Amino acid sequence: MTSPLINRRDLAFVLYDLLDVAALTKHARYADHSRETFEAAIETAHRLALEKFHPHNAKADKNEPTFDGNTVSMIPEVAEALAAFRDAGFFAPTKDYELGGMQLPLTVAQACNAVFQSANIGSAGYPFLTVGAANLIESFGSQEQKSLYMAPMLAGRFFGTMCLSEPQAGSSLADIRTRAEPQPDGTYRVIGNKMWISGGDHELSENIVHMVLAKIPGGPPGVKGISLFIVPKRTVNPDGSVGARNDVRLAGLNHKMGYRGTTNTVLNFGEKGGAVGYLLGQPHRGLEYMFQMMNEARIGVGQGAVMLAYAAYLFSLDYARGRPQGRAPDSKDPTSPMIPIIEHADIKRMLLHQKWVSEGGLHLCLYAGSLVDRIAMADDAQEKARLELLLDTLTPIVKGWLSEVCLKSNEHAVQILGGYGYTRDYPVEQYYRDQRLNPIHEGTDGIQAIDLLGRKMAIKGGAGWTAVKAEIARAIKIATAHERLKPMARELAQLVETVETTRATLLGAMGQGKPSLALANAFHFLDLFGLLVMGWMWLWQASAVLDLPPAATDEERAFRAGKLAACRYFFTYEVPRSAYLASMLGKLDDTTLTMKSEWFA
Amino acid sequence: MTSPLINRRDLAFVLYDLLDVAALTKHARYADHSRETFEAAIETAHRLALEKFHPHNAKADKNEPTFDGNTVSMIPEVAEALAAFRDAGFFAPTKDYELGGMQLPLTVAQACNAVFQSANIGSAGYPFLTVGAANLIESFGSQEQKSLYMAPMLAGRFFGTMCLSEPQAGSSLADIRTRAEPQPDGTYRVIGNKMWISGGDHELSENIVHMVLAKIPGGPPGVKGISLFIVPKRTVNPDGSVGARNDVRLAGLNHKMGYRGTTNTVLNFGEKGGAVGYLLGQPHRGLEYMFQMMNEARIGVGQGAVMLAYAAYLFSLDYARGRPQGRAPDSKDPTSPMIPIIEHADIKRMLLHQKWVSEGGLHLCLYAGSLVDRIAMADDAQEKARLELLLDTLTPIVKGWLSEVCLKSNEHAVQILGGYGYTRDYPVEQYYRDQRLNPIHEGTDGIQAIDLLGRKMAIKGGAGWTAVKAEIARAIKIATAHERLKPMARELAQLVETVETTRATLLGAMGQGKPSLALANAFHFLDLFGLLVMGWMWLWQASAVLDLPPAATDEERAFRAGKLAACRYFFTYEVPRSAYLASMLGKLDDTTLTMKSEWFA
Repeated sequence: MTSPLINRRDLAFVLYDLLDVAALTKHARYADHSRETFEAAIETAHRLALEKFHPHNAKADKNEPTFDGNTVSMIPEVAEALAAFRDAGFFAPTKDYELGGMQLPLTVAQACNAVFQSANIGSAGYPFLTVGAANLIESFGSQEQKSLYMAPMLAGRFFGTMCLSEPQAGSSLADIRTRAEPQPDGTYRVIGNKMWISGGDHELSENIVHMVLAKIPGGPPGVKGISLFIVPKRTVNPDGSVGARNDVRLAGLNHKMGYRGTTNTVLNFGEKGGAVGYLLGQPHRGLEYMFQMMNEARIGVGQGAVMLAYAAYLFSLDYARGRPQGRAPDSKDPTSPMIPIIEHADIKRMLLHQKWVSEGGLHLCLYAGSLVDRIAMADDAQEKARLELLLDTLTPIVKGWLSEVCLKSNEHAVQILGGYGYTRDYPVEQYYRDQRLNPIHEGTDGIQAIDLLGRKMAIKGGAGWTAVKAEIARAIKIATAHERLKPMARELAQLVETVETTRATLLGAMGQGKPSLALANAFHFLDLFGLLVMGWMWLWQASAVLDLPPAATDEERAFRAGKLAACRYFFTYEVPRSAYLASMLGKLDDTTLTMKSEWFA
Repeated sequence: MTSPLINRRDLAFVLYDLLDVAALTKHARYADHSRETFEAAIETAHRLALEKFHPHNAKADKNEPTFDGNTVSMIPEVAEALAAFRDAGFFAPTKDYELGGMQLPLTVAQACNAVFQSANIGSAGYPFLTVGAANLIESFGSQEQKSLYMAPMLAGRFFGTMCLSEPQAGSSLADIRTRAEPQPDGTYRVIGNKMWISGGDHELSENIVHMVLAKIPGGPPGVKGISLFIVPKRTVNPDGSVGARNDVRLAGLNHKMGYRGTTNTVLNFGEKGGAVGYLLGQPHRGLEYMFQMMNEARIGVGQGAVMLAYAAYLFSLDYARGRPQGRAPDSKDPTSPMIPIIEHADIKRMLLHQKWVSEGGLHLCLYAGSLVDRIAMADDAQEKARLELLLDTLTPIVKGWLSEVCLKSNEHAVQILGGYGYTRDYPVEQYYRDQRLNPIHEGTDGIQAIDLLGRKMAIKGGAGWTAVKAEIARAIKIATAHERLKPMARELAQLVETVETTRATLLGAMGQGKPSLALANAFHFLDLFGLLVMGWMWLWQASAVLDLPPAATDEERAFRAGKLAACRYFFTYEVPRSAYLASMLGKLDDTTLTMKSEWFA
């Protein structure tokens, strides 16, 4: 195993052979960059992840953060790792040079982030939230807010959070109760309780900048009355120095199944009269703003899921190659030597599943990142809008569908190790527990499914779906040039038709005033659409492999053969599930909808 | 929620309306029994489980057993619960009165065991192993062995284990190295290391009776050279008193993801020259004997999986009824009150999945138990053989397929609770971790799949399959009498044909000298066969509901409506998956088989 974190050949394949990230360097913004500088950044991230993040991954899990009623304590390795991370500039990889950034494309920054996620998802959580919160201030904040809050966040001195959920309103933001009362000096007093706040308290940074959804009294009901506030843990003086504690109190830490390195908190705002808060942007537009961070976070969660799957895949692969057990079905002589378990077809089944999930998932996440880069670079408004629709439509798949298939992938990694996989002596056990969070946070997968079917498939006359279809059609055309890919290209084209028909049926029901019926099986539509998107990714990968110049080494030949085999596996064992899903969806079945609460046990 | 452990109406439905356990009382052996005495035993078990097992389930998880190099320590509640269990006679529910037993049918004993498993799978593990080991001695032991070892086990004074796996040979018993050297006095000296031994050491009982697979030097290679030995932790004097420590040492405890209440151990036999062991039955027939315990254990593991799913189902159901969140898709007024999450179709989807898994799984496990009872009562050798084949064929489904679908079921329970489900404050988190063991122990699900396809479907000219088919045909015929069940009956008949064809294709390949190809996708065959068996159970349940006399209460009407809805859900959302599986299997696809180790990342 070259690296326990990622296959660097695979990462390079995605970045350069699939996404052609190097082409971005023709833009003025990236003029100083080249494939070499991208690789240097990734190499730095990889080394740092191996040296500073990976070694304490298990330790942080076994010794989760504690709270004595006053201060949060955690193992010192977390702060050390984040200091090294800060010193290497990873709090602002995409930002302008003058802001202290590296001015890297987001795709490359995401690639760097991927190795940290693989090494230690818990410790990687803090900068992830900080960058997202800083981006919010960059997009919607005043000059003063940028200098007082964003700048120290990009420098890694202040960390950030997103404060949305409340105890009585987990996913239902329309029902939040936190209120922000306007003060004569233009500030607000924020009062309320926030739940499930990751990174909500710790001593890792000089300050914590909470991005808080709250309602200004007198505003409209529901989500239209939500505004967004900057509420620092400690107030910041006009000269940027950190002042006194604000009225934000840690009520307690949540004790989780996994993902233990990232503190998860209950925060009380305004127990002593009100936490000082600063309105970000306009009143009542808070949810709209927050969606920027939520969408970034959803891509980040999807990629985190992928990297937990990837790390587990690499570990279980290495184990399967080294563990002798049993014999092939056609060689039962008990005196013959045992074979490594990787030679058993059922083990290869589980490894192939992990391979398509991990490598296909990484491709999809970085593709999403590349769309953000292309949106930023697009001169043409129509092209920009098209790319935005594409990204919006794929986001529920990145977050929701990937987190489902990644959980299954981690389940396989445990299974390959057998009893050992079930013990806490091997990392696959922790990866599995860590992974279980991903279908839940940043909008459960059920919510992602409704977002996909009820919004993304419908809005702007289905322009998002049209954009996805056009991209897939292009990939099918390219694949069709390769004789051996023709059957899979045909299957993918068929799957596009299947989704088309299914979408029409479901949106038809919606149009006929039956939204509950149309959305009742949204989860299966998410699954169907995920198969389409992943089929697209793998056909794309297979085409790219066949378009490469001749391989120079056995290792490279093996890499390419593996890609083609994984593509074949996906089309043989996963794509056919689509017919079953489409058939269920096409019936507009109301079994779940008509089930009554009292009929359950 | 009437009981957090089980729906007693459902249990009674399975025992009396489906399996007609009361009919067993016409046999002389059960002449003293009646539905009332059965219910009294279950009531006692239920009360004991609620009072003594359930309260320390989470505590035992949070405070797992420790080993100081000398003695294993655990929370005192475990010993207290097991003492109460012993005093109530549950170590010997099925045994003759003169052996101190209750002379209950196994089906009823299994029902009793089910509530203990639901309450606390960790503490229930000790008697479960003890009963299995005692049964082995009863079947194959000498009179002396029965009186010295079995009798104190049935009295709950000695506990038992099964010692099969070794560090270098987890599932590959042909490769075990533990040896048993014959001594002039007829005893053996056992020397070797055993791994993954549940209940391998503790201070809960006066003694531990290890059932150990070992090889007598000079015997045939592979599984044909395996013999079975009784190796007590402490020797037992001829008068039954417990003597000195035998040469069996606890090398260490395994630290598991879940299932922490049951110690799991590495045992070293013979570090000081050899542990005294007593041959059970004939030499070299050990594996054949051990299969009795393994088969019992496989049913037990399947039922344990079901009860972990059942407990989580009941908890998440209760939560879903009480937790308000969001609004229906056709009522988005943010000032309207929130609805309980059970009103959301996607939550009902996850509850319906849990319902068919839990209630259908319980039905299948108790049906397996009822087959054991019918085998014991059968006068006719042919009928006995038929029932044995039926049981053998269903065992991989009970153990392997159920543990897969139960894990998914527990995943849903966590998901319904959202962030709360991911915290250690709610029991669904532990149930999920506990459940993850079940696809691994007692033969991984991959091994169960090979057992089903390569052995159970093939042996005796397919007589096992013929027996299953005949039972299903009978169920289809009964269901067809009900107009509303006809479509489902037809679908099940179609599924029988699908399995028939698929089996013929796969066994055909086996017959043509391609066992590796035939078995490469055995896991998917297990899935296909599982759908058939579960479809059979649910059609059976639906028929029985419609055959009941008119319901007297609203509660009973709701219970029956729920059964019909769950059956409909299974046939609408699960059975159609069979076409996809059969299509893959029918192709004899070799993607996994031909994948090369070096092609993986």
